[in-house]
Amino acid sequence: MPMGCAPMGYVLWNEYMNHNPKNPTWFDRDRFVLSAGHGSMLQYALMHLSGYGLSLDDCKQFRQWGSLTPGHPENFITKGIEVTTGPLGQGFCNAVGLALAEAHLAARFNKPDVKPIVDHYTYCIMGDGCNMEGVSNEAASLAGHLGLGKLIVFYDDNKISIDGHTDLSFTENVAARYEALGWHVQKVPEGNTDIDGLRKSIEEAKKVSDKPSFIQVSTLIGYGSPNKANTHGVHGAPLGGDETAATRDELKWEYGEFEIPDSVYKLFGDTQKQGEAKEKEWDQNLAEYTKKYPKEGEDFKQLISGKLPSGWADVLPTFTPEDKGLATRLHSQTMLNALETSLPGFFGGSADLAPSNMTLLKAYGDMAKGQMGEKNIRFGVREFSMAAICNGIALHSSGLIPYCATFFIFTDYARSAIRMAALSHAGVLFVTTHDSIGLGEDGPTHQPIEQLASFRAMPNILMLRPGDGNETAGAYKIAVLNARGAGPSGKVRPSVMAFSRQGMPNLPGSSIDAVAKGGYTVQDSEGKPDAILLATGSELSLAVEAADELNKSGTKTRVVSMPSWELFDEQDQSYQDSVLPPDVIARVSVEAGSTFGWSKYVGQKGKSIGIDSFGASAPAPTLYKEFGITKEAVVSAVKSLV
Amino acid sequence: MPMGCAPMGYVLWNEYMNHNPKNPTWFDRDRFVLSAGHGSMLQYALMHLSGYGLSLDDCKQFRQWGSLTPGHPENFITKGIEVTTGPLGQGFCNAVGLALAEAHLAARFNKPDVKPIVDHYTYCIMGDGCNMEGVSNEAASLAGHLGLGKLIVFYDDNKISIDGHTDLSFTENVAARYEALGWHVQKVPEGNTDIDGLRKSIEEAKKVSDKPSFIQVSTLIGYGSPNKANTHGVHGAPLGGDETAATRDELKWEYGEFEIPDSVYKLFGDTQKQGEAKEKEWDQNLAEYTKKYPKEGEDFKQLISGKLPSGWADVLPTFTPEDKGLATRLHSQTMLNALETSLPGFFGGSADLAPSNMTLLKAYGDMAKGQMGEKNIRFGVREFSMAAICNGIALHSSGLIPYCATFFIFTDYARSAIRMAALSHAGVLFVTTHDSIGLGEDGPTHQPIEQLASFRAMPNILMLRPGDGNETAGAYKIAVLNARGAGPSGKVRPSVMAFSRQGMPNLPGSSIDAVAKGGYTVQDSEGKPDAILLATGSELSLAVEAADELNKSGTKTRVVSMPSWELFDEQDQSYQDSVLPPDVIARVSVEAGSTFGWSKYVGQKGKSIGIDSFGASAPAPTLYKEFGITKEAVVSAVKSLV
Ligand SMILES: [Ca+2]
Ligand SMILES: [Ca+2]
Repeated sequence: MPMGCAPMGYVLWNEYMNHNPKNPTWFDRDRFVLSAGHGSMLQYALMHLSGYGLSLDDCKQFRQWGSLTPGHPENFITKGIEVTTGPLGQGFCNAVGLALAEAHLAARFNKPDVKPIVDHYTYCIMGDGCNMEGVSNEAASLAGHLGLGKLIVFYDDNKISIDGHTDLSFTENVAARYEALGWHVQKVPEGNTDIDGLRKSIEEAKKVSDKPSFIQVSTLIGYGSPNKANTHGVHGAPLGGDETAATRDELKWEYGEFEIPDSVYKLFGDTQKQGEAKEKEWDQNLAEYTKKYPKEGEDFKQLISGKLPSGWADVLPTFTPEDKGLATRLHSQTMLNALETSLPGFFGGSADLAPSNMTLLKAYGDMAKGQMGEKNIRFGVREFSMAAICNGIALHSSGLIPYCATFFIFTDYARSAIRMAALSHAGVLFVTTHDSIGLGEDGPTHQPIEQLASFRAMPNILMLRPGDGNETAGAYKIAVLNARGAGPSGKVRPSVMAFSRQGMPNLPGSSIDAVAKGGYTVQDSEGKPDAILLATGSELSLAVEAADELNKSGTKTRVVSMPSWELFDEQDQSYQDSVLPPDVIARVSVEAGSTFGWSKYVGQKGKSIGIDSFGASAPAPTLYKEFGITKEAVVSAVKSLV
Repeated sequence: MPMGCAPMGYVLWNEYMNHNPKNPTWFDRDRFVLSAGHGSMLQYALMHLSGYGLSLDDCKQFRQWGSLTPGHPENFITKGIEVTTGPLGQGFCNAVGLALAEAHLAARFNKPDVKPIVDHYTYCIMGDGCNMEGVSNEAASLAGHLGLGKLIVFYDDNKISIDGHTDLSFTENVAARYEALGWHVQKVPEGNTDIDGLRKSIEEAKKVSDKPSFIQVSTLIGYGSPNKANTHGVHGAPLGGDETAATRDELKWEYGEFEIPDSVYKLFGDTQKQGEAKEKEWDQNLAEYTKKYPKEGEDFKQLISGKLPSGWADVLPTFTPEDKGLATRLHSQTMLNALETSLPGFFGGSADLAPSNMTLLKAYGDMAKGQMGEKNIRFGVREFSMAAICNGIALHSSGLIPYCATFFIFTDYARSAIRMAALSHAGVLFVTTHDSIGLGEDGPTHQPIEQLASFRAMPNILMLRPGDGNETAGAYKIAVLNARGAGPSGKVRPSVMAFSRQGMPNLPGSSIDAVAKGGYTVQDSEGKPDAILLATGSELSLAVEAADELNKSGTKTRVVSMPSWELFDEQDQSYQDSVLPPDVIARVSVEAGSTFGWSKYVGQKGKSIGIDSFGASAPAPTLYKEFGITKEAVVSAVKSLV
């Protein structure tokens, strides 16, 4: 990959990309995504030559512990890397997200009578593997629909993947497919040598402003290697000593390993200076803009600072038991529409489930070609690319806080992208509804069981399942804080929020602030408890009812709400012990999901009420009864323990 | 959906499909998949009319507890349903799998001089949602590549999805995309009324035998409903009383709810008789075939009986400590190639990682157009559709046992399809390699952490992580048994097997049979243990080393291997207690993955050594050391407990 794509990389980085190596976070830089992340060394080499401060020694530490040059590009390790790539197809989606973010901000902020302050291209290199993955087709379809004209993608068509020649499994007409998806398509048949053809393709791509551009560049994998070029042997493995020497001969490259002649550095010599000049020019544009549009200018600077505006969370409402009990998906809708008013970077959408996920921002219309400034993204039935696109939006690093929504069960479609959000510190809010068998009649294909456990086990992400209005407000507050690294832990991390279809009452003991602790006593017994009930979400009120009955019958019972295990585990031991006193061993958890993992809190002697099989198609109350998630079951479990 | 697709359904079920309602499992029936599973009532109605024994009362129990008519079609509930659909795009992939299974068996068994014994079509109805999902593009690309000429797909192009008109997010040229993917594409512009056009399209589709057929049928959603047709209001919701009455008027339908005039039953009156005749004809073909080709005929009958041949597992090799220690992915390769010789239905492939997953069957070539009888499927970089296609192969119900492979981390791409395998009792073997940070330099994008926990939490699936050669053989044995419902539990369920990249020794205490218990004492202390180490996979030998040191230093330590939590939990309490005596509370688990869930076995006082953050890019030994998964750490954890 690095060898076949070197010409593309050279032309892009040396001649076309606007970037300032001395300030890799300059807002208006062109974005570059190497979707074929296994070719990371290409990007490291380009960054080294361009003066990003990545030294030859760094390059020599390729794939070693603690180095700046890991096996795949990682934005949280290496300055100048925009997004983390490797899992195929997703880098391309990230690029769609970056281009969408640019188009959105350009539509919102640029003015006809001043030079644009948001005006950059997004470049991407993708390979065969990226194009075989369905997720890239989803994103390509949406990018074509939205007409993201400043997205320019190179397809490194080297006809080789790990299994061997792509003829083994990949014989479709890729270019025709992209045309069908509404892209501007070009071909560069001699990608290894036709530098002018590459230049021309970029210039043509820039001329087409209402369609994203797809440039199919035919290359030879391992170009220059006389014996291994065009074989899958070079896909992920080094050439080896002999073949490296032969390749040097073939390419008439007379320099040693990691020896770079001055002539090459000279070629890239102006990159830093040009970059600084570009940034300076942009600074002036922004100054002029702010002079003419003081409010917008200040708003823009505040937004791209990435800092949360002061008082942003004050818009979140609180609830008392007198307030009507609602499904948390309805509370979620309230929070989304409240936060939109105080967070200018807050926007998002659903994968064709807006009326069910309740995610429409009522003050805005639908994002579409020609109306990119709107805030409701209609992702279509494309959960996986939706999540990966949102990762790109979050990592545009312009203060945007994207949310995206689907049924909780369909996080399974998006799981790898949600994991990439967690890994790459992309502050996305994953809004999910219909979070248990409580969704009822749609049946087991739509009923999440193990999804709560599976996200609790995922590193660097918050799994939040609030149990009423206050907890929903609290969940959004902590999710936004963590999206920006402004929570107590300082970590930048995404959140998955699970909301119910069915209604539930507002509890007297819930609060926004308590959610930040992850677990807390939402209703206590009089005096030291004999037993503790632990619950989340829609089962919280059920636990309270059971506790009321138990307290009446003489078993002093505390109810602990556990909206986020991760946050609870981050509290100090004394707080944890105050909520779950170690000497109270009669503990029962109740949650309409897998019991997997609950033993950590209830102990080996405790009991967990949940559902460890698949659900069924029937009205929700029937399902709760048939699967034994009832007040009676909770009461009897506690009684068997005390 | 049911209303717009009724004409397609009628023409297909009444005029074109070869099926025998009295014997829904007749081998050579045409397969039908409603990929747009939310329209389940269409299929129930067609099954009722065709005489599948689904009564009007059953239809009245739509979406009720215990009914035969759940919200989405479920093959494990309703006889005559081939696959479970609902999660969009996957039914289409299942159909590709069903067609692939037919083509494979036809190539293997049919002879030029006798009538074919494998010769059926696979029909599928898909909607906009299915076509937006990337997984369907993956499968369509592969189906086009393989030239599955007997796959005929109707695209119900009703321009409506849940969000509203598809213009909101879906404006690509779907037909042109399928052409680019190598399909034979037709259009029926008046799908609500042009019955002849539908007939002609099926006939044309049958004439094209080297390409799958895509028929774009333009319909009006809720056709007949004067006020709600062509709105998303009818997508998943009932019409309501008034509108139902208006619709009856519009369609001049004078019969009551659930009242079906005799004339309609008469239309379908011959279906049963024709079906019986078709099956009889096939019986004769098979008899003739068997006469001419006795061995092949008997092989075929044995295969489609779905029963495992006697002695099939005897080919699995056993290992002693003298045998060279190997990566379990290499042992896996041995088992795959062994089982291929004793299980005629065993075949599969990898998602472009065959040389890494070690999954090639050496006695066979690559499946391709014109060589569909080969047993190595080259899925391309298409993990999600690979899994969903294998679900279709398994549910072809012809004794085929498909396996499919990728890196363990990329089960995240395929997760929803793997869940569908578990839900729909599809006996697939999910072969995964590079199962921990032990894969080394590729770094955190490729290193599984929470995947073990996430599959352990999933219902009706076995998560198997063997620790040496014998355990790998045992894992395959139990996986095959469960794939066919022939294990002790009787459950039909898939397995996920996780194999290592790195080598490990063969242990003296491991055995094939022990794996079937899920957990067992692989090395005991002399006398009652003071401590128990629990481990899986590549950490098993590490635990043994630690135990050796602990035993030497006077802490009697037992090592328990836990290749499958699910199977261990299914053993009776006395067996479980014999392996994990309740009074031994000094317990330490060691596994190079998330510690999530281990508290169930080690207890709240026990310790778990693992990794709860993301991995990093470095050589494997460095990673184990840096993340603290070492013999020293295990020894010191035990010492802190005893
Ligand atoms: Ca390639
Ligand atoms: Ca539709």
